[in-house]
Amino acid sequence: MIHRFIGGDQGGWQVRAQHTLCGAPLPAVAFVDRRPPASPAAAAPAPAGHWQLQGVSSHLRYTTRAERTRLQARQPALGRPEARCAALIPLRKSPAWWALAQDERRALFGPRSRHTAIGLGALPAIARQLLHARDLGEPFDFLTWFEFAPSERGRFDRLLVALRASPEWQYVEREIEIHLERVDGA
Amino acid sequence: MIHRFIGGDQGGWQVRAQHTLCGAPLPAVAFVDRRPPASPAAAAPAPAGHWQLQGVSSHLRYTTRAERTRLQARQPALGRPEARCAALIPLRKSPAWWALAQDERRALFGPRSRHTAIGLGALPAIARQLLHARDLGEPFDFLTWFEFAPSERGRFDRLLVALRASPEWQYVEREIEIHLERVDGA
Repeated sequence: MIHRFIGGDQGGWQVRAQHTLCGAPLPAVAFVDRRPPASPAAAAPAPAGHWQLQGVSSHLRYTTRAERTRLQARQPALGRPEARCAALIPLRKSPAWWALAQDERRALFGPRSRHTAIGLGALPAIARQLLHARDLGEPFDFLTWFEFAPSERGRFDRLLVALRASPEWQYVEREIEIHLERVDGA
Repeated sequence: MIHRFIGGDQGGWQVRAQHTLCGAPLPAVAFVDRRPPASPAAAAPAPAGHWQLQGVSSHLRYTTRAERTRLQARQPALGRPEARCAALIPLRKSPAWWALAQDERRALFGPRSRHTAIGLGALPAIARQLLHARDLGEPFDFLTWFEFAPSERGRFDRLLVALRASPEWQYVEREIEIHLERVDGA
């Protein structure tokens, strides 16, 4: 199923800030509309004046059984009432990353960058959904969606700092951080 | 980009035989139309009376650097003039497979089932394209497309026998083998 985010002048999430870490920016928008997952046949171009990002959820591609057991024991669901803050981070890795084989990517993700261990430190405060976009021919490889309570913003910022300091992030060539706040009633 | 196969009464590949190995069959058709890759926004439902299978190509998900180097040195391109035979194999694995973590799937795929080693034995005679369908919400997890010269049919059959005898195949719960022949002028 394809998940879509449409940036424009309406939606359930209001944009509070948008930072381009590297690569080309996205046009600034006031709202993001997070659409329910749908089959590819239901896909459509973005409305005029809007951008659209799409991806699919998948199984975990680098996580060992032991790591996954620890993650699943602590990770919260999306949609918690107190989680009024969200962040959408579209990200593209470099051709050099995709030229690596599975064992090389796993070594960078796991032993060298401690991606899962860093993520575990943010649980159960921060809910996360990873969507894969690269195989769809999208401009980004991944869209990550985070949800957390306003009181957890500092923890979220520290999570990003830790991930971006890891060797894995040397392969990131485009990254945009869009901070959102849930619209009342949405 | 999304690759689509449309089974019906026209297309560049004529169906010579269709075998259901396990799980529900697909309706019998006379031709398969292999469409050029397109963005999700170009997707459409299948025409009436036809079936449609779709998937995306991706990076290799279990292959080490050493294995990939051996594969790339030997694997032929699609579309060789002599490769007038093709096979389309849609396949679904069980929930038990998808409940495994990456390290467990890799152990089954590699050391226990020798998937890559078996595949190497069919190179350079048999060209192969693997498409991923599961994350799109499709009825199959994978669509594999093979192309070979008529003289290589025996080698292709032995490849399938060897793969299906592996521990990995105990996780296959639906598999259909559609043999095709290129239509002259297509």
